[in-house]
Amino acid sequence: MTVLSFFAPVQDLLPLVESRMRQQADDRHPDLQAALRHIIDAGGKRVRPTVVLLAGRLLEADQDKLLTLAAAIEMLHTATLVHDDLIDGALLRRGNPTLNAQWTPAATVLTGDFVFARAAKLAAETDSVAVMKQFAETLAVMVNGELTQMFDSRGVPSRENYYQRIYAKTASLFELSTYAPALLGQVGASLRETMRQYGRLIGNAFQIVDDILDFTGQQAAVGKPIGSDLLQGLITLPALYYIENHPTDERVRRLLEDGYHNQANTNALVEAIRHSEAIAQAHTEAVALAEEAIALLSHFPDRPERYALEELARYIVNRTY
Amino acid sequence: MTVLSFFAPVQDLLPLVESRMRQQADDRHPDLQAALRHIIDAGGKRVRPTVVLLAGRLLEADQDKLLTLAAAIEMLHTATLVHDDLIDGALLRRGNPTLNAQWTPAATVLTGDFVFARAAKLAAETDSVAVMKQFAETLAVMVNGELTQMFDSRGVPSRENYYQRIYAKTASLFELSTYAPALLGQVGASLRETMRQYGRLIGNAFQIVDDILDFTGQQAAVGKPIGSDLLQGLITLPALYYIENHPTDERVRRLLEDGYHNQANTNALVEAIRHSEAIAQAHTEAVALAEEAIALLSHFPDRPERYALEELARYIVNRTY
Repeated sequence: MTVLSFFAPVQDLLPLVESRMRQQADDRHPDLQAALRHIIDAGGKRVRPTVVLLAGRLLEADQDKLLTLAAAIEMLHTATLVHDDLIDGALLRRGNPTLNAQWTPAATVLTGDFVFARAAKLAAETDSVAVMKQFAETLAVMVNGELTQMFDSRGVPSRENYYQRIYAKTASLFELSTYAPALLGQVGASLRETMRQYGRLIGNAFQIVDDILDFTGQQAAVGKPIGSDLLQGLITLPALYYIENHPTDERVRRLLEDGYHNQANTNALVEAIRHSEAIAQAHTEAVALAEEAIALLSHFPDRPERYALEELARYIVNRTY
Repeated sequence: MTVLSFFAPVQDLLPLVESRMRQQADDRHPDLQAALRHIIDAGGKRVRPTVVLLAGRLLEADQDKLLTLAAAIEMLHTATLVHDDLIDGALLRRGNPTLNAQWTPAATVLTGDFVFARAAKLAAETDSVAVMKQFAETLAVMVNGELTQMFDSRGVPSRENYYQRIYAKTASLFELSTYAPALLGQVGASLRETMRQYGRLIGNAFQIVDDILDFTGQQAAVGKPIGSDLLQGLITLPALYYIENHPTDERVRRLLEDGYHNQANTNALVEAIRHSEAIAQAHTEAVALAEEAIALLSHFPDRPERYALEELARYIVNRTY
């Protein structure tokens, strides 16, 4: 048994999800097919489709619709990454060249749009209006979150602002990954809400861990410089803890006064944060969310998928890349 | 009675469509609200929502759903324009500054995405899975068409290629504007198809007229230089006719040999085309499509909306801007 054993109950299904994704450019322009292949091949661990399949099977949703939904959600995730990489000017993602690195901005915008379109088509193929509405709402939340992050002046956010941001960025899609299967499943409104909450909790935990890894991770693994968020003026949970713990720290004072553009100071602050107790504090907060998520699972039937979802919550907070 | 009298049966409803569009950024970031207001205020004549409302009322679709559908389709249209203007680097549309002219590319990409998201949400609010599927498919066709135009080498297209391109660019959305209301209406499969065909025909006619106006229109009205398509290497119907009529024309030979980058030659060719019989030939082709569309309307009930759709088809081919 590996740490990734939560894949076990659905490991036969994930290749079917991938092939459903790959089919989406059939009959389209060969260059578009190549682009889609490239993006899909560069895909990550398929955590979201795994969540969809586990939650859906636990709640006895129709398997074919679940596969379609899992493909829809991973395509939506993929589309947002394509546009994000374009916006950030990122040339690598997970160590692979981004589409953006190889194509013109125009082709990248349109390829992202195409992936959105196919995601929407797949979502419609679940034949559930409720799923479609949730799907479209999630997309709007994610895009609005990115726009807010872009428009808002940099500064120290409140906890509430931080949680709003990570909800929009990550937790909303995890929430969709558990709520939409529940909408397709054999389950009442109360358990649907519980499943939705599980998704939001692990999604928030996931993003907090990402924010920690931005400080502690190996540059090669994350594909960007250590502390890249703070270097761009984005204050995440580890930085928030550090600022709270050390209000008189000279580097903190400078950040608040001069802003993050004082690169020497921001670099020094990144170093201070990554070796501070703020990392463990942020991690404890993520673990608490995962534990809360796991506790919710007790409401569901005693089945392998439930234990896999428990493991998945633990994996999310224990991963190191 | 003005030439725009086809608006009459739905003129009380169009403001409701507009307000449904405007609501889509409520509760979002103020800058996003401002952007959406800007885009909507710069909107055109709302031909597509008018088509939706006329077709839907003729087929007795639920009025509230029609308003939502009309807003969804106009939002989809708007989203594609936002990304198009970004891709083309256009600074003006219909004489108004584009979003692109005022905002960063990143903000423009995301605003387009947000408008897509809200369009999808509105489409889902029709509570029709069939409408949702058609909506997503249309988006995919439109984006695939743009990508094809971007990837394909310039050259003289076949008629078939030309019609594929204008279907993707324009007629597919007109088709959605008649087929989706039919899906919501009280009507059998055969009349639904007839309505769909009407939409495709007027959409093709619309784009042919646009392609003609690119040669003949007043620069101020179209907001781009005369012959801008050909100057970018895009051969549209008037150019196709001219090339067929004058295979030995020196300017045609040069275009085929040197390509459109020979700007002096391409400019001379634009001048030749705009004063040639090719304009009337292309227009005759558009009129024939409109007449075919009008003939199809005889299958529908004898009601004011049917006559408005007739007038609308005539307006589309008679407009001069």
